[in-house]
Amino acid sequence: MKKAVVLLSGGLDSATTAAIAKSEGFELYAISFDYGQRHSRELKSAKAIAQSLGALDHLVISFDMTKIGGSALTDNNIDVPIGRDFAEIGQGIPVTYVPARNIIFLAFAVSYAERIGAGDIFIGISEVDYSGYPDCRREFVDAFEKTANLGTKAGTEDGVRFHIHTPLARLSKGQTIKKGLELGVDFSLTWSCYLGGQKPCGKCDSCKLRLAGFAQVGMKDPLEYVD
Amino acid sequence: MKKAVVLLSGGLDSATTAAIAKSEGFELYAISFDYGQRHSRELKSAKAIAQSLGALDHLVISFDMTKIGGSALTDNNIDVPIGRDFAEIGQGIPVTYVPARNIIFLAFAVSYAERIGAGDIFIGISEVDYSGYPDCRREFVDAFEKTANLGTKAGTEDGVRFHIHTPLARLSKGQTIKKGLELGVDFSLTWSCYLGGQKPCGKCDSCKLRLAGFAQVGMKDPLEYVD
Repeated sequence: MKKAVVLLSGGLDSATTAAIAKSEGFELYAISFDYGQRHSRELKSAKAIAQSLGALDHLVISFDMTKIGGSALTDNNIDVPIGRDFAEIGQGIPVTYVPARNIIFLAFAVSYAERIGAGDIFIGISEVDYSGYPDCRREFVDAFEKTANLGTKAGTEDGVRFHIHTPLARLSKGQTIKKGLELGVDFSLTWSCYLGGQKPCGKCDSCKLRLAGFAQVGMKDPLEYVD
Repeated sequence: MKKAVVLLSGGLDSATTAAIAKSEGFELYAISFDYGQRHSRELKSAKAIAQSLGALDHLVISFDMTKIGGSALTDNNIDVPIGRDFAEIGQGIPVTYVPARNIIFLAFAVSYAERIGAGDIFIGISEVDYSGYPDCRREFVDAFEKTANLGTKAGTEDGVRFHIHTPLARLSKGQTIKKGLELGVDFSLTWSCYLGGQKPCGKCDSCKLRLAGFAQVGMKDPLEYVD
């Protein structure tokens, strides 16, 4: 079996992406990041998802992005937007954008993949329910893939070429949930809320997109929300 | 004054690179990495160099690359090669190569630069005294620069475009030392040895390239070596 490194945040996109990788016959090597995020509770979900999908390893890399800050997810002085409608969510880059986060995440994923001899990396970004994050565009991933193949052993005799898979790139949140359900993903294990409280808030951009996705498939989100 | 983020390892290449950035009129924001490297003592040198050059800030990001391993610098079970001649050093990718290290380092540098509004990033890689590291080639840096400009706010209204400077790309170690001396770099503050002992070993690839560089300029290395 071929190995794949899967970026696992603990959300429903990455859980579905991992399930897709598994359905394509890959052995899963999960990687998650404890980066000082407000909702670090998502890492418990990542662990549960990795276990439920039979990942052979789950690497958690820790670093402190609060030292850099500049995002509502890594600076407690910046509020997470609450109660925005979808027109607002779709406008510009939100304050929950973390500077260069996916470049950092993919860089570690490439390092891990190179180490274990995996050429395939899966990341659950989507361009459709566009969250305004520049690092969620396939164009960015294409450029990163090229960079990874130039900045590693790839291309040398004992190197593997990297291919970065983005199976959700063209899927809406509803389509992602539908795909996940087909593949048996247990969405009760996932976490999306930016606030990271005991229960999801239902009002931050991430909760709103998630809830709209479940509404699209006519299903109730298995998570219990505040109120 | 324009801000520049400078990657500072503590070695003589990055010290000279920082001095070049300063000489070009940039305000220096240094970034270093405590990544589980065998020679973490280089971070003391990085701090001293940042201070000596009047850096306005020195950010140290910590993460544990020993979890990934696969390099003599991050896995104590892999020996650092000692006493190799230059023909051997020039052959292939050495075991001191750390998987995707410069991709990770540059990713954090971009995050920091985006946060402080700096478009200029300096890294002291050289293609001339080629150490066999694929992530020291300008071709890689060009691809990374493009990636950074796609995966961040760059290109949006409030984003800065990134330019990654590699002023040493075409310099030999001797030429780098000469340049550093012209700019007043205090090489007694720098550290290059991979072993990271009390004194540099003089026999690892990094020490050998350094000593050859000083020999090229007919100068004694100010560091005191073992024996």
